[in-house]
Amino acid sequence: MKTPKQLSLDVQLHDEATFDNYFVGENGALVNCLKDITASQTGERVIYLSGPKSSGRTHLLQAACHELAKKQQPVCYIPLRAQLEIKPEMLDGLTHMPLICVDDLECVAGDDAWELALFNVYNAIAASNCRLIITATDTPNAINFIRKDLISRLNATLLFQVKPLNDAQKIQALMLRAKTKGIQLTERIAKYILEHYARDMSSLTAALDRLDVLSFEQRSRLTLPFVKTVLDIS
Amino acid sequence: MKTPKQLSLDVQLHDEATFDNYFVGENGALVNCLKDITASQTGERVIYLSGPKSSGRTHLLQAACHELAKKQQPVCYIPLRAQLEIKPEMLDGLTHMPLICVDDLECVAGDDAWELALFNVYNAIAASNCRLIITATDTPNAINFIRKDLISRLNATLLFQVKPLNDAQKIQALMLRAKTKGIQLTERIAKYILEHYARDMSSLTAALDRLDVLSFEQRSRLTLPFVKTVLDIS
Repeated sequence: MKTPKQLSLDVQLHDEATFDNYFVGENGALVNCLKDITASQTGERVIYLSGPKSSGRTHLLQAACHELAKKQQPVCYIPLRAQLEIKPEMLDGLTHMPLICVDDLECVAGDDAWELALFNVYNAIAASNCRLIITATDTPNAINFIRKDLISRLNATLLFQVKPLNDAQKIQALMLRAKTKGIQLTERIAKYILEHYARDMSSLTAALDRLDVLSFEQRSRLTLPFVKTVLDIS
Repeated sequence: MKTPKQLSLDVQLHDEATFDNYFVGENGALVNCLKDITASQTGERVIYLSGPKSSGRTHLLQAACHELAKKQQPVCYIPLRAQLEIKPEMLDGLTHMPLICVDDLECVAGDDAWELALFNVYNAIAASNCRLIITATDTPNAINFIRKDLISRLNATLLFQVKPLNDAQKIQALMLRAKTKGIQLTERIAKYILEHYARDMSSLTAALDRLDVLSFEQRSRLTLPFVKTVLDIS
């Protein structure tokens, strides 16, 4: 059996992408729609989220996956950024699942086999109970797909644009994530990190992860000197 | 923009199944094997975990899924307890993925279509880069499968028995989960909960979730009177 001392060394606070630690900002309608789908698998069959880098698309998609897995429902998460390691044939039977989550759709634009597979999935979904959530950096028209029929199908989905947070919201978002991790981050320190370290949520979240681990290891609170040292802000 | 007060009401500490909040106990070899697979997708192609209810099978399987999703790798989680809502055809193309996680295999024993689909997946995996992790309540021989060929294939996998925790380990496990949630749970209180509320990890974890939410809402520490009230221990 482990002693309490060994135990504490094993702990690394995890940071999963869930709805609870997503700061909604202006994306209330989108988040409610995703929550409805994961709660009851009803409503629109295909949801398409477009948004710039660091706008939280992947976070929302993984949150939807977590919700289903938590309810012991089958779920499939397919980030197409990894498309070279997987094959489009994997999509064939997936419409027999309750939910498919496709991340980074723009990564397969111009790849005929993948575009055809996605077109077929879209059509098969109409005759199934499956829901499909897609994310991409841009709207269907703005992505260089070869297949016009795929573009027209994607334009017929429920399209949401993920609205990035403004600076004040990013500070609140950072404080929310700190709170869900069980660490104290004051508004003053959050503002300081935003102004002196980074302004995009991916970097901010990664910074918080580092602060979290080190503050736990060193049993330090998130004071300004501690934050400056860990994040190497001079 | 939300005020800090509104913000705090939105927070509900999440509790995902990750490797970080899994108390290893006697399952070190198994956990290392799963971590290796999710880190590099090398080694054994099919891992079979058997263990009684509440031994942590689903936790480990979902932890493997989280690891891959976090690395933006495709992953598929299929709890067969939900097999009535899904169809065996969904397995057809899945061996083109890096990892398939099948939970509750015993639920489809006796269902010829599912047994055949799993047999085909097993055979297809030999010619793929896919890894398959299966959990079940029991070893292949002890489950009432119709197909003898499926039983023989499953017996050829890397078989692990998930060892349930003893009481002292459950107390440590509960303290680990509390710590990853950022709440203070003393050994004395953890022991009290085990002795007066429940002895299985599922109930203990659910109790901790409740204590977590209410202690946050009521801004109370996990004292003995607070725990007794929340868990209704008289």
